[in-house]
Amino acid sequence: MDKRLEKQLSFALEIDKEKNIFRQTHLSGHGRRENDAEHAWHMAIMAYLLREYSNEPVDIAKVMLMCLIHDIVEIDAGDTYAYDDNMKQTQKAREDAAKERIFSLLPDDQRTEFISLFDEFEESKTAESRFAHVMDNLQPIMLNNSNGGSDWAEHKVTAEKVYQRQNKTKLGSETLFEVVDGIIKDNIKKGNLQ
Amino acid sequence: MDKRLEKQLSFALEIDKEKNIFRQTHLSGHGRRENDAEHAWHMAIMAYLLREYSNEPVDIAKVMLMCLIHDIVEIDAGDTYAYDDNMKQTQKAREDAAKERIFSLLPDDQRTEFISLFDEFEESKTAESRFAHVMDNLQPIMLNNSNGGSDWAEHKVTAEKVYQRQNKTKLGSETLFEVVDGIIKDNIKKGNLQ
Repeated sequence: MDKRLEKQLSFALEIDKEKNIFRQTHLSGHGRRENDAEHAWHMAIMAYLLREYSNEPVDIAKVMLMCLIHDIVEIDAGDTYAYDDNMKQTQKAREDAAKERIFSLLPDDQRTEFISLFDEFEESKTAESRFAHVMDNLQPIMLNNSNGGSDWAEHKVTAEKVYQRQNKTKLGSETLFEVVDGIIKDNIKKGNLQ
Repeated sequence: MDKRLEKQLSFALEIDKEKNIFRQTHLSGHGRRENDAEHAWHMAIMAYLLREYSNEPVDIAKVMLMCLIHDIVEIDAGDTYAYDDNMKQTQKAREDAAKERIFSLLPDDQRTEFISLFDEFEESKTAESRFAHVMDNLQPIMLNNSNGGSDWAEHKVTAEKVYQRQNKTKLGSETLFEVVDGIIKDNIKKGNLQ
């Protein structure tokens, strides 16, 4: 087999491991914990479905691809819970090493392309990355809300922390921030969020 | 909340259930069975990664979206194993009913768009749908091969059956059909496929 195709297929097989990286979010219906591949799949469909609410016009194929690959580094680095301050301190170093190893399985041109896409998501400076971040924030809050906010309760997360994270949502979509804001206020009222 | 957005979000929450639909394929490393959402995520990334091998030029955003949504009907209809002839007889009726219920959660324009995309995939008459089918065939065979063909052995699948299904692969990508052909021949030699 051609060397280029061999590399592409070895990357394709490697990322199968993302299905074993579990997040703190639970599936709706008080299901089990969600894994990174499922989360990314859900985000990509939601991005397409809700693209009319982006503050700025976006290249939706790029947003979807960003959603699909943004957690691949967690195969090595593990999932860092959004509200775990200790883990967040080492997150960048862990993810940088993972990025180097995993994307280097690809042919050079695709390695460069995927790393650049991953970095663009992380830096959150373009319309596409800002809208992808809206999905990264909206998708788990939607599931958690459907479960009566039980993920927050389990980790004693405060409304202040949730709002800190959701500030990014406003930068990508004013309309979807209103949805999130409504969910947060409702969960404070119900006593699910401190 | 705006009625349109409410419908979009109710669809977004509904499709979370796809994560509970398990396939016959096992994850690499002799892992657990894979679910539909994980399979779709994997296919969409592979489609982007391997798009240069499509027989015809494709709109890759459309291929990715097709990959992402092609199994949503299984939320109601369940997974039909590729080599289960009895289940295959009732597959279309089960999936048609599911398609109607689930996509009707969306606003009318998006209901029409998603149903049309789903039908295009099923009919396999366009370049995009043919390439999406390559991914639907290549992704599980890649995982199964990494596990020594154990999914075939478990279901006593014959090489003839596998080739029947993989004929579609050739229509979308001659190059990737060669990969699949190599995997099948190798597994026949090793006694994993009858």
